[in-house]
Order: sequence, then structure tokens, then C-alpha cells
Amino acid sequence: MTTVSIIGNGNMGTAIGGIVAAGGNAVEFVGRDASEPITGDLVVLAVPHTSLDEIVAARGAELAGKVVVDITNPLDFETFDSLVVPADGSRASELAKALPESRVLKAFNTNFAATLATKTVGDAQPTTVLVAGDDDLAKQALIDIVRAGGVNAVDAGSLARARELESVGFLQLTLAVQEKVGWNAGVALVA
Amino acid sequence: MTTVSIIGNGNMGTAIGGIVAAGGNAVEFVGRDASEPITGDLVVLAVPHTSLDEIVAARGAELAGKVVVDITNPLDFETFDSLVVPADGSRASELAKALPESRVLKAFNTNFAATLATKTVGDAQPTTVLVAGDDDLAKQALIDIVRAGGVNAVDAGSLARARELESVGFLQLTLAVQEKVGWNAGVALVA
Repeated sequence: MTTVSIIGNGNMGTAIGGIVAAGGNAVEFVGRDASEPITGDLVVLAVPHTSLDEIVAARGAELAGKVVVDITNPLDFETFDSLVVPADGSRASELAKALPESRVLKAFNTNFAATLATKTVGDAQPTTVLVAGDDDLAKQALIDIVRAGGVNAVDAGSLARARELESVGFLQLTLAVQEKVGWNAGVALVA
Repeated sequence: MTTVSIIGNGNMGTAIGGIVAAGGNAVEFVGRDASEPITGDLVVLAVPHTSLDEIVAARGAELAGKVVVDITNPLDFETFDSLVVPADGSRASELAKALPESRVLKAFNTNFAATLATKTVGDAQPTTVLVAGDDDLAKQALIDIVRAGGVNAVDAGSLARARELESVGFLQLTLAVQEKVGWNAGVALVA
């Protein structure tokens, strides 16, 4: 049994915690500051992109040696028309630079919370979590945890692919805001 | 009835032509060089990205005033690890610069040919064509033609969103090459 620590108890953190628990693994929710220790080997940062720097500052040393999962969509929330990361990079690669002793993965950013909670995109299409990262063992560990919880997960490649995953998340958010897809639906991967 | 001219008679051009015809609109296939005139008001460039410059050189003046649809995924086909366009741009925006008198749309690049031919992604999920462009009338004309042919189509925003559509197409191709999705499946949009 793996312990997954989740920072953030909003819709996304709650839904991810539900998947972890459904697969028989342990979940702990911890705060952004360092008042409670992190006991899990795998830590999901289920917070908006604007909170990542704060967590790195407060918890960076503690995250060394752990698998850290970035789920953010780094949108400019004022314009909803661009990302705030360099065009040739991603929020995940920036996080990896800020946490050089951690193994950073990108995952869950292409899934709306409701699709993780219900395990379907819309009424019937099974939800798939796309996972990118440079450490194959870390990636497989997360994929196994998600699949154990009854949700499909696919290795989407190296951490460089986080750029494309963030593009997918961005596009999906613009379509949802314009009511072209529901918040319980969106992009699905069909094998 | 609209006449749609298609340059390129491979899998994609054939599938797109089938949709156009199914909707009761006219299709003509024309060559890359200027030996045959283009009579349609809407022209689909159903060719690899490496052929666009040749078409611009041969047909650029003739494409003035027309709606031009870019379907390409501008991958570096040697590495399959990056796009060949600037990180903050897209092949479609480059084409729009090269064809300043045309109204350029991005469409079909997130759809594998088989999903256009069968109208489903995988066995059952309806295919959706994502369309981006700066000219709303042009965009609506293409969306109407696709829907008339029995395939869903969604306005994905301005031509700036072509960058995200090309990211989706790129990601989908990497997943197919690694056999994580079938060439008859891939990314589906669920409303």
C-alpha cells in the first residue's frame, strides 16, 4: 500500500483522493505550510498554479526524494486567452527546476474534477488520466494507483509532453467556459 | 450548395471529401500545381505540412478571397518529439501570414482519417471536428458543411487556438505511434 499525500482539498484534491482510496491505497490531506509533515512518498499538489511557488517555498526541502504531481493549468485567469508559462515550456518543467531533488510528474490537468469523481467523461466514456514525466518508475507508480482506483491512466511521454498536456487543459477550459462542453465532460481519450 | 475544393487525395482528403458530399455539397479534387483552376470558395489543403509552401507558391494568388483550411500537424517527422513551428505560433498562423488575402482556418488536424470516415472515435464515440479561425463567417460555413455531413463540429476559438489544436494533434500522434490509441480512435470531445 502506498500513501499518497494531497495538498489541497478542493474539487480536484477530493476527487483524486477518492480514486486513491478506492484502489486500496492510503490518502492523507496536508496543508500548504509545513505545520503538518508529509508522510507519503507520492505528493499531489492539488492547488491552482498560483499557489505552487508558496508550496515550493514552504515544503521544497521536504519534497526532496518524493514523487511530486503537478495538476495545474497555468492560465492567465484574467484573459483566459493564454498561458503564463514560456511558450516552449510548461508549469511542470518550471516546477521540476524549482524542485531538483523531486521526481515531478504532470497528471490530472486534462481531467475535470467531475470526470474523476464519476470515472466517466459525459455519460458513458471512461475517464483517462494522462501522465507525463521523465522518471519511468514514478510514472508507473502513479498510473498503477489510478488504475487500482478504477480509472484508466496512460503514459503520455516525457515531462516535455507536459507542454502539450497543458495545451489540452487550456483548450478544454476555454471550451467549458464557453459552454461548448460540460464541466462533467470535455476531452476523452479513446483507445 | 457550396463547392469545396480539396488539394490532396490521400486518406484525409478522401475522408473530408466524403463528409462534404454526404452533406449535399459539391467536392472537387484539384492538384497542387495551378494546372487546374480552383472553383470552390472553400479550399481544404489536405496535404502534409511540408507541402504547404509549394502550394502557396503555386496557388497563392488564386487562393486570395477564399477560405483556406489548414489540416496539418507540423511535426518534426524525424524525431517525433517536437513541432517545427515557433513555440508561440502555429502552422496555421504562418499560413495566414503567407496568404494575407485568404481567410485561414485550422480544422481536422485533431481527427484521424478513420474517425472522419466512420464518424466515430473508436467504436461508439461521435467524432467532433475542432475549428479555429479569426473569421466567424468562414468558420461557421465550415462547421455547417461538416455538420451537414453527419459529423459534429465545434468552434474552438480564434486562430490563436491553432497552437493548442496543433498540440492536441501532436500528442495524439505520439500516442498512436506508441500504440496507446488506435488510428481509428484517439482524442474525442464529449459535450
